[in-house]
Amino acid sequence: MIKIFSSFRIKILLSHLDLYVLIAVVFSCTSTFGQKTLNLEEFGIQDEKDVTPIVVKALEKCQEEGYTKIVFPQGTYHFYPTFAPERYCEITNNDNGLKRTAFPLINFNDFEIDANGSDFIFHGKMIPFIIEESSTLKISNLSIDWEVPFALEGLVVARDSTSHTFDIKVDSPYLVQYGHLYLSLEREDSPYEKTYGKRFATMEHYNLEVGQNIFWDPKTMAPLYNTRLYNMPEKGINAVELDKGLVRISTNINTLPPLGSVMVSKGEYLQNRTSPAFRVFKSKELIFKDVNVHHAGAMGLIAERSQDITLDGFNVVLREGSGRMITTTADATHFCNTKGTITIKNCIFENMLDDATNIHGTYVRVNKIIDERTLAVETFHPHQNGYLFAEKGDLVRITDQHSLQPKTEAILLTKVERVNEKIAYLTFEEPISDKVNVYDGVDNTTWHASALIENNIVRNNRARGFLISSSGRVEVRNNRIASQMAGMRISGDLKLWNESGPIDGLIIEKNTFINNLYGGNKQAVILIDPEIEQSEFIPNQFYHRNIIIKNNEFYSFDSPILKAISIDGLIFKSNKIIQSDYYKPIFPDEPNLTIIHCKNVDLKDNTYISLTGEQKDLTVYKNQNTIK
Amino acid sequence: MIKIFSSFRIKILLSHLDLYVLIAVVFSCTSTFGQKTLNLEEFGIQDEKDVTPIVVKALEKCQEEGYTKIVFPQGTYHFYPTFAPERYCEITNNDNGLKRTAFPLINFNDFEIDANGSDFIFHGKMIPFIIEESSTLKISNLSIDWEVPFALEGLVVARDSTSHTFDIKVDSPYLVQYGHLYLSLEREDSPYEKTYGKRFATMEHYNLEVGQNIFWDPKTMAPLYNTRLYNMPEKGINAVELDKGLVRISTNINTLPPLGSVMVSKGEYLQNRTSPAFRVFKSKELIFKDVNVHHAGAMGLIAERSQDITLDGFNVVLREGSGRMITTTADATHFCNTKGTITIKNCIFENMLDDATNIHGTYVRVNKIIDERTLAVETFHPHQNGYLFAEKGDLVRITDQHSLQPKTEAILLTKVERVNEKIAYLTFEEPISDKVNVYDGVDNTTWHASALIENNIVRNNRARGFLISSSGRVEVRNNRIASQMAGMRISGDLKLWNESGPIDGLIIEKNTFINNLYGGNKQAVILIDPEIEQSEFIPNQFYHRNIIIKNNEFYSFDSPILKAISIDGLIFKSNKIIQSDYYKPIFPDEPNLTIIHCKNVDLKDNTYISLTGEQKDLTVYKNQNTIK
Repeated sequence: MIKIFSSFRIKILLSHLDLYVLIAVVFSCTSTFGQKTLNLEEFGIQDEKDVTPIVVKALEKCQEEGYTKIVFPQGTYHFYPTFAPERYCEITNNDNGLKRTAFPLINFNDFEIDANGSDFIFHGKMIPFIIEESSTLKISNLSIDWEVPFALEGLVVARDSTSHTFDIKVDSPYLVQYGHLYLSLEREDSPYEKTYGKRFATMEHYNLEVGQNIFWDPKTMAPLYNTRLYNMPEKGINAVELDKGLVRISTNINTLPPLGSVMVSKGEYLQNRTSPAFRVFKSKELIFKDVNVHHAGAMGLIAERSQDITLDGFNVVLREGSGRMITTTADATHFCNTKGTITIKNCIFENMLDDATNIHGTYVRVNKIIDERTLAVETFHPHQNGYLFAEKGDLVRITDQHSLQPKTEAILLTKVERVNEKIAYLTFEEPISDKVNVYDGVDNTTWHASALIENNIVRNNRARGFLISSSGRVEVRNNRIASQMAGMRISGDLKLWNESGPIDGLIIEKNTFINNLYGGNKQAVILIDPEIEQSEFIPNQFYHRNIIIKNNEFYSFDSPILKAISIDGLIFKSNKIIQSDYYKPIFPDEPNLTIIHCKNVDLKDNTYISLTGEQKDLTVYKNQNTIK
Repeated sequence: MIKIFSSFRIKILLSHLDLYVLIAVVFSCTSTFGQKTLNLEEFGIQDEKDVTPIVVKALEKCQEEGYTKIVFPQGTYHFYPTFAPERYCEITNNDNGLKRTAFPLINFNDFEIDANGSDFIFHGKMIPFIIEESSTLKISNLSIDWEVPFALEGLVVARDSTSHTFDIKVDSPYLVQYGHLYLSLEREDSPYEKTYGKRFATMEHYNLEVGQNIFWDPKTMAPLYNTRLYNMPEKGINAVELDKGLVRISTNINTLPPLGSVMVSKGEYLQNRTSPAFRVFKSKELIFKDVNVHHAGAMGLIAERSQDITLDGFNVVLREGSGRMITTTADATHFCNTKGTITIKNCIFENMLDDATNIHGTYVRVNKIIDERTLAVETFHPHQNGYLFAEKGDLVRITDQHSLQPKTEAILLTKVERVNEKIAYLTFEEPISDKVNVYDGVDNTTWHASALIENNIVRNNRARGFLISSSGRVEVRNNRIASQMAGMRISGDLKLWNESGPIDGLIIEKNTFINNLYGGNKQAVILIDPEIEQSEFIPNQFYHRNIIIKNNEFYSFDSPILKAISIDGLIFKSNKIIQSDYYKPIFPDEPNLTIIHCKNVDLKDNTYISLTGEQKDLTVYKNQNTIK
């Protein structure tokens, strides 16, 4: 155990330059004595249909008897929810609720799970790993998949422009009921179900009405070019079952999808993010090494209120031969309210229905000024219900609701009291009532992580590549990003998502961006767009600081490369843009670079090579800036 | 405080015949010294728009500083959920979830709330009173209502037999969306809602698609005669908004509802029992005196795993002048897994969408035989998720899944371990593995309450009057019951609801049953129908024992008075049946009495007076009985 974590610990320690402790750790790391390993072979795990109870019992034994490592013999294991323990989890950006799990890693410290390349197949609504209040864990050598996916995939086999309908062939479990199409999740069988049928399956959200649909192209294994032409409404899509596995869809769709495309639906919003693969909360020093997430009914990994997490070879990838289009139904990875260093390296993120990663904080908003030092604050988006914004001892900063500019320095919280999943009372060390208005934002500056994102591949996913909103130092280097929308997005808003964390030191270098933006959304390959109305700009005040974009290659069929708003200190240099003909441009008249309300901007040594091979000047739109 | 509880305590003590303690209590009861009362007038409660935070703070103060009574100045108070604390509640026969409350009475002992006849108006999804782990409480002199009801009421103003549609006029909040009609619950406003609209209201179940519909007759203020003619499907009812407040409905309905009737809908199943008025769990010695529940988005009072509860003047009644048809959207009161004595007296229960009361246990079913002494048991119905069936020290009995006959004596549980909301492990004091099959039932015999139900009125509600499935002694006396289905139902099943508790000593006397059974369901005024297939009857083995029905008056427009199945010891005597012409008979050819598989049956001295005034013999159907 100690050996395994040595390099990790050293890195942490080096960052603190504490030589004495460093030597002590290196010394102890040379010994492998003291590691107590439990091999699940002894539990007869290979003979069980449902291994959940065995794993749960083995983990209890580890905790009670001080085992530091658990090992699976290489194999394929099925995990059912029937005898799985459960926990009420409030998971930011996913769906809250009572969650069944096979790996309840609560209060585990110095512990390792090595599955020797095993396949873990999950059944129904579960969170495979719940990691809370734990530290110094390593999880390695395993693949996660689900027997029945949380997404319906229907091959378009016919289309009729007269009736404006199209027919899909569906192989996975589905139901046509009340004139609508439902994706059917795996549900435990029981004598009750046998007697009464799946009477409550729809009401218990095991049948999800198709919604949040998108069309995929099996030839590219990615969303259709100009995806937004095929947008459908989120609810009320009409369906008729023509034959077993053949469903006719009629709905308000702009353009009928092409024959051979695949309609993908993850079902109703607020019910389709129930089952991430890894839930991490209040934990630190975690390593995920050589883990494949082939599918999840939400994110691949969602970490919040945690610190120092390393993903090394954490791949969200299709399983070979599965025939599926979709890996995770939400982001591959997501970090909210984290600190220390988030390291993401050597990973492949493909075919998700959302971003590759998002590292951010979340603003809460002032609901009421209680007294001189106390504010009632609330979260807004339903995916932030129960969000743990802050604890006593955190530093937080009040942010103006219109300009997004801080109205205070970071101030210590002396008390935090949760009232309910929406409201908490924050008590500040000093008076703030005269500096704050109702609806202003509050940002937690203690929990802004640094990040290192390198040598990763992002491809064939809906939405963006990497989203960063954190004031820690962030380096994004040597990645290949082929996302459907922006390759990177740096935002910040007090609107729908309330993502906080102005950038203060971001380097984007030596990455390759490949034909992003084919979804048809008016973005830019690198989109830096804090959501501030132009009328709210304050002269000489900016949202982000110190962003360097250099030595990247942009293979781009379309025009917008960079859009940058409200930055003090933007360097865009030595980048190479190579025009591509992979797709037809959707926004050819947009400038390559759009720079709005920025200061200390340096655009230089960039090259643009057109389809004909000739070098051209970048087109730049500038407004309200101070640009070199 | 002590004075208030004196009569209550004496009754409890007398039942234990413990004279020494009795005298001690009576002595201390004569003194009112030591009662420490907090008057909410001191908190300025009368000036506040939202009194929830004040009440919560006052209750905290009571607990911290040892107040024994809290008093409201007479007034009308509004309770909002915004600053309400919350608790994850698993509430049998209602909907589980995170619940906001204004009265979190957790760990309160010897405490009284007197509201001096105040009106409490609630807003949105809340449980006004959550009472858990508490004892010796009295709550009195208050009325509970909601600003926006949990039921849509639509007056039928037009009907078109050609198009098979009807139009309703709706005054309460609603929404027509995706071609369906939604009942809109009250929802907190926020800057977010203001910016984005009620974007998530439907997905968060604040708009509930009309389902579980029933038609009411404003002339009788009760469900329509032969209600079942107007049954609609639970989902997929089509709606078009013709004008503001005017909606055209088309659906698969047998007979179009009459003009002037009122369509009542409480919305989608598993989302329409979120907000009972009183939730009681693991508590004892509670008195509710002069409490009116004008409305609730679920039951009026649901008590489980509790004992010795008295409802005296606990009225579930319409508020005068409200214009509404509906009080509670589920049962008026409900007691599950209770013991001691449940007393219900001097109450009026009217216009509920379900029964007046139901006192029962709940069978769990054997999912897996773990070892010689341990069973994995599960609950079935979604309304029993998280049901606390038993704790260590309880006596439980295994019941055959087909015959419903006990297969063991009551056996002590030495350990109970919850695995998840469906599954628990029960460990028995003695070996049971050879006496049990998978899918058998298990009944908790420790938690079967006695009950006294007298001087109550039940009227104008959908469904039944009193449902009793408990082996404690139960007396039902001097009540007037005018329910739409059976006046009383005594069941027991291992099917949909799994209600346990064979009767062993039930007296039904001096009650007046008035024109029950007008809903059109083939029942009987007193329906005793444990759900056992006739092929599973075992000679000389019966489900219920010792039921006496005497000196009651039945005013009945229809034929079926009593249906009795599987009873050892049934007396039906000195009852007077008076034929009524209030409605036209629906099942005139049914026998008055149906007696199947009973023993020791005594039917005597009953009279039947027909419409013409002449006395007739009761018609009796008998099968597989031993009848005197």
